[in-house]
Amino acid sequence: MLLRLRKNLSRAELEAVLGLARELGYGTRFLDGGREILALDGVDGGPEPVGAPDHRARFEDLAAVSGVLDAGESHELFERGEGRADTVVRVGDAAFGGKHISLVAGPCAIEDFDSALEIARAVRERGATCLRGGAFKPRTSPYSFQGARAKGLEILAQVKLATGLAVVTEVLDPRDVAAVGQVADMFQIGSRNMQNSALLIEVGKAKKPVLLKRGFAATLREFLLAAEYVLAQGNEQVVLCERGIRGFDPSTRNVLDVGAVAYLKRLTHLPVVVDPSHASGRSELVRPLSRAGLAAGADGLIVEVHPHPEFTHSDGEQAIDLEEFRLVAADARAIAALDGREVVAPRTQGAKR
Amino acid sequence: MLLRLRKNLSRAELEAVLGLARELGYGTRFLDGGREILALDGVDGGPEPVGAPDHRARFEDLAAVSGVLDAGESHELFERGEGRADTVVRVGDAAFGGKHISLVAGPCAIEDFDSALEIARAVRERGATCLRGGAFKPRTSPYSFQGARAKGLEILAQVKLATGLAVVTEVLDPRDVAAVGQVADMFQIGSRNMQNSALLIEVGKAKKPVLLKRGFAATLREFLLAAEYVLAQGNEQVVLCERGIRGFDPSTRNVLDVGAVAYLKRLTHLPVVVDPSHASGRSELVRPLSRAGLAAGADGLIVEVHPHPEFTHSDGEQAIDLEEFRLVAADARAIAALDGREVVAPRTQGAKR
Amino acid sequence: MLLRLRKNLSRAELEAVLGLARELGYGTRFLDGGREILALDGVDGGPEPVGAPDHRARFEDLAAVSGVLDAGESHELFERGEGRADTVVRVGDAAFGGKHISLVAGPCAIEDFDSALEIARAVRERGATCLRGGAFKPRTSPYSFQGARAKGLEILAQVKLATGLAVVTEVLDPRDVAAVGQVADMFQIGSRNMQNSALLIEVGKAKKPVLLKRGFAATLREFLLAAEYVLAQGNEQVVLCERGIRGFDPSTRNVLDVGAVAYLKRLTHLPVVVDPSHASGRSELVRPLSRAGLAAGADGLIVEVHPHPEFTHSDGEQAIDLEEFRLVAADARAIAALDGREVVAPRTQGAKR
Amino acid sequence: MLLRLRKNLSRAELEAVLGLARELGYGTRFLDGGREILALDGVDGGPEPVGAPDHRARFEDLAAVSGVLDAGESHELFERGEGRADTVVRVGDAAFGGKHISLVAGPCAIEDFDSALEIARAVRERGATCLRGGAFKPRTSPYSFQGARAKGLEILAQVKLATGLAVVTEVLDPRDVAAVGQVADMFQIGSRNMQNSALLIEVGKAKKPVLLKRGFAATLREFLLAAEYVLAQGNEQVVLCERGIRGFDPSTRNVLDVGAVAYLKRLTHLPVVVDPSHASGRSELVRPLSRAGLAAGADGLIVEVHPHPEFTHSDGEQAIDLEEFRLVAADARAIAALDGREVVAPRTQGAKR
Repeated sequence: MLLRLRKNLSRAELEAVLGLARELGYGTRFLDGGREILALDGVDGGPEPVGAPDHRARFEDLAAVSGVLDAGESHELFERGEGRADTVVRVGDAAFGGKHISLVAGPCAIEDFDSALEIARAVRERGATCLRGGAFKPRTSPYSFQGARAKGLEILAQVKLATGLAVVTEVLDPRDVAAVGQVADMFQIGSRNMQNSALLIEVGKAKKPVLLKRGFAATLREFLLAAEYVLAQGNEQVVLCERGIRGFDPSTRNVLDVGAVAYLKRLTHLPVVVDPSHASGRSELVRPLSRAGLAAGADGLIVEVHPHPEFTHSDGEQAIDLEEFRLVAADARAIAALDGREVVAPRTQGAKR
Repeated sequence: MLLRLRKNLSRAELEAVLGLARELGYGTRFLDGGREILALDGVDGGPEPVGAPDHRARFEDLAAVSGVLDAGESHELFERGEGRADTVVRVGDAAFGGKHISLVAGPCAIEDFDSALEIARAVRERGATCLRGGAFKPRTSPYSFQGARAKGLEILAQVKLATGLAVVTEVLDPRDVAAVGQVADMFQIGSRNMQNSALLIEVGKAKKPVLLKRGFAATLREFLLAAEYVLAQGNEQVVLCERGIRGFDPSTRNVLDVGAVAYLKRLTHLPVVVDPSHASGRSELVRPLSRAGLAAGADGLIVEVHPHPEFTHSDGEQAIDLEEFRLVAADARAIAALDGREVVAPRTQGAKR
Repeated sequence: MLLRLRKNLSRAELEAVLGLARELGYGTRFLDGGREILALDGVDGGPEPVGAPDHRARFEDLAAVSGVLDAGESHELFERGEGRADTVVRVGDAAFGGKHISLVAGPCAIEDFDSALEIARAVRERGATCLRGGAFKPRTSPYSFQGARAKGLEILAQVKLATGLAVVTEVLDPRDVAAVGQVADMFQIGSRNMQNSALLIEVGKAKKPVLLKRGFAATLREFLLAAEYVLAQGNEQVVLCERGIRGFDPSTRNVLDVGAVAYLKRLTHLPVVVDPSHASGRSELVRPLSRAGLAAGADGLIVEVHPHPEFTHSDGEQAIDLEEFRLVAADARAIAALDGREVVAPRTQGAKR
Repeated sequence: MLLRLRKNLSRAELEAVLGLARELGYGTRFLDGGREILALDGVDGGPEPVGAPDHRARFEDLAAVSGVLDAGESHELFERGEGRADTVVRVGDAAFGGKHISLVAGPCAIEDFDSALEIARAVRERGATCLRGGAFKPRTSPYSFQGARAKGLEILAQVKLATGLAVVTEVLDPRDVAAVGQVADMFQIGSRNMQNSALLIEVGKAKKPVLLKRGFAATLREFLLAAEYVLAQGNEQVVLCERGIRGFDPSTRNVLDVGAVAYLKRLTHLPVVVDPSHASGRSELVRPLSRAGLAAGADGLIVEVHPHPEFTHSDGEQAIDLEEFRLVAADARAIAALDGREVVAPRTQGAKR
């Protein structure tokens, strides 16, 4: 491990660093005359592996350390090591990662059984393998519709039975993880909760696939470390979702960070999907953003679809209608083919009723 | 209530709006030929008050409505109405708001009793009335020090007894609200959790003062609506904290939005404090930012102080030492005096031991 | 024209608005009781057209006017009106817009004739129709290499003669427009100069195609109004270039705003290209960003290519090598084909020497 | 000079670095086994001083160099070296820097002589030593009022004669520097032109004081290097102006970066002033932001003042009236006194007429 120290440390400050190194079992030596570059070496009986993430974190916490320049052979779980294959996350018929692209579609919020079923059947027919739809909705105002909650979960369970679609739905509260997990095939962690560590740990423990949305002002490192909270619980089934970052121009709601999609695919073995609906806040941009995301390497899409966007209770401006979703799915297949990838088609049938 | 509708609505879209108005008991009339400006009027037996926030929220949720232009006589609880006096939030000896400025100081994290007591006594002597210090620490990496947790709370309880300082400490998980509330005189909600509605509701129910930090990319409206989650539980004791927003220049960690401090004081009756430590991430800027925040109208400061910043386990770069805190407190008194305000001095004595 | 006035105007403030309306020949009437929505109507002998952009601008300049809600039948020149076809900008063999996609490629800076010629031939062979390359370089530091200047222009002229490629090169100073125009087939206006109105007017007068780069923190409206400075000189040959906006995450240099590409195509009839090199600052992301930009609807790419990126004097980290450019061009043809578009191939031959 | 090289350089890439070092006359040695940290040493007959900014710039331009870790004893001209006193910039009666604070005030744009004179007299009476006012206005739209131009300069000249106030006015085009310099006592370079190097060089050559506004998305390093363009022409009379950076919240127009003010005072010996008018875009916030800027260490203010803000042709929303300016000036004196600083009072009398 190679540390950069701040300049002109006092004796006491320096000792704080060296003492921690000793405590963890490292040998130390300075590489330069100015005593700024400090190498920590593995020694006989010393720590294995050198530079484990928790060791790094402790050094980074010291005021005297301005940065860890090189951590050595040890890495976070999210990292794409040399030759590490893509993690493929499977949710019902869907598969994300490797050569597999999957489409998640559905309404913003679950409102009633009939309309949820209508949408679910329609998006399945057009190529979706997962149904999205909020039972618990995170809202900016306490007076806005907060979702149908328990009733919403019940509807999702029935629609799942009727269509065979896997269910992706948001959980907001660590105390709801068990109940939501009764129905959800994949937990969604929303943008506002990307750094809600209590919630991340709880879904990590649940050992179910997790769709983790990037915080709207999170760096890629913060995003990956949020995923690491889940991975560190022994749950490797994490799909990262880029959903737009907050920008300065009110003409689109957010800015789809398509460079982040491409860069994440190089930094991690985890699959990455794109949410073009929240990224723009404009239904007319959903199709071009879907194309852009997949062309940049995304492993799937999560899209808001509604047969009558004008009647929705929230976020109607960004939902696309069924015909537009058909075009999005067709585009997805065409772009997948350019890279020898494939959009996974729905197979599971709904139960006879 | 005055709504702006989107242009060229279909009959069905328009009906969605008019139907909701009828359902809620409003009369409707268009103000313009283009049928874009729709007035909703109170009618006999109609809703009281017209334009209640929950009504507004329902209209805003409709895709056909591009905005609520004027809500009429009804307002969110946070709003500074005509002639509404400042809310003064009292925590132990401290008071925030009106003519009262209070200083919250202490270490980033609570590490052990002796050092916590040393700091507490030192900051009290220099003018602080509240002790800050994290028992539960929100961290970007799961491998970083997460705080001393239960042991940290215990230490805080002892230090409070010994010094008479009120305790301000962060709660991260709705399931911890009861336990933290045993010790805390004021709950801190961190920046990452500003929109964690489950947590906001829980501290709202606890009916204790809440220090709510602005999310690092939250608009003022989002910030105020997060406060509204607490207020809507019947808990009016909310202090807003500006702690820097995320910018594009890595030379400072965040950007203290001093205009937000001034503007919040016009938008709301709630007190506003400034956290100059997180705002800059540089100890040398804590003093000038403290001055700037108070000069812009802030009702207090929350500052990281450590007798030996070089030994801290986290965020050492932004902690100031005791002498610098003495200067910050002296500045606070001088700036307070310019406006006929006063920095509240500690009175309560610690218990004899 | 429909204006929204600020609330509670004084008589004098109101008169400032009404007086300007009279001066310009409009009739006025309020649409609402609160006297906030003011309609300006065309009257006999009044202005034609109603709501011309320069009239709007004068009303927007008034403090009493909070916005122009509807400008009526008159529009800026950049606007995509009902049924307006795409403007196709032709530069040598290249064509941007409509069904035409073109590739601009070359080194960051022009250094010497031999290497410029080598690159030019190589990119032409792989599908580029225009050569990019800076003779005048905008640099952050006055001590950085500012380009080969006059000598660079001379080299560009020779390479153009030898290869038949059209030349796209930046102009920084209105006093250089004539000299640069001797060689350039298309002026490039860099990101730092997007709002340099003196320069925009000068290239507008030169009546040559202009590649206008978006400022790294410019809104789409600011970007389009910068283009309007050129269009208003009677020069319609403007190609807009999205090159990444400044974000908060240092892991990529900028954020390619692919939603802006898609949205601009809806707002304006002008062609839009993408610069994936500056957008990411990382050569490994140039190919995925090129794909994303074209998939979102871009009409071309401008890419930094260098046979030996490691030897370049500036921006080497973002240049791609020749093999990677071959792949970018192949991707471009494949994505163009999805929409029935075509990447224009080079035809013009270089002069015999 | 200490360079960090990128990892795993090819032999050719490495040679590019070592060759440049030889060419400039440095000795080279690696400090670490990984050959990433390269020291460049002064040798007999080698460069003096080691690490001059133009040398650094050339190394930074190489793709193989990821950064210059330490430049050694040589610095840019803007840098506050050990023990370097504040530069004091004097403009007429005004002085910026050291113990001197000065107030620049006036209308947004110069419209006619009578109103300009009225404002000038009024702000002088209340403590301003410089008159601001645009003859050439940078505007987003080509159809907006671009200033009274030559006539505006003439008015400024007359008002200066009549009041004794120094004139601060913007120049937009390098070709106008001579004409504007006939009247201006201090050139203003606007935010949009912060990186207009042609213009910076021209005002540098003019050897007159320059008020350089920070670009609304410029880092501090970019800002300081823009100043360096002026300084490098032998013109040391540069005053930096923080005028708000672009943020994500439309509730204020910009975000006053008060931490930048404090940090700039540590990075450079140049004076720093604050423009509270553009920073907020709201007249009600001008006073608190003025206070905050000065409390953070600013050496002056530049404020838009208008006796009747409602009649102005541009930016009326942010102008304050005369009474509010009186309060701003009184605050300035009070805050200056806290630090033993002084607001310079106007002394020069206007000419008898």
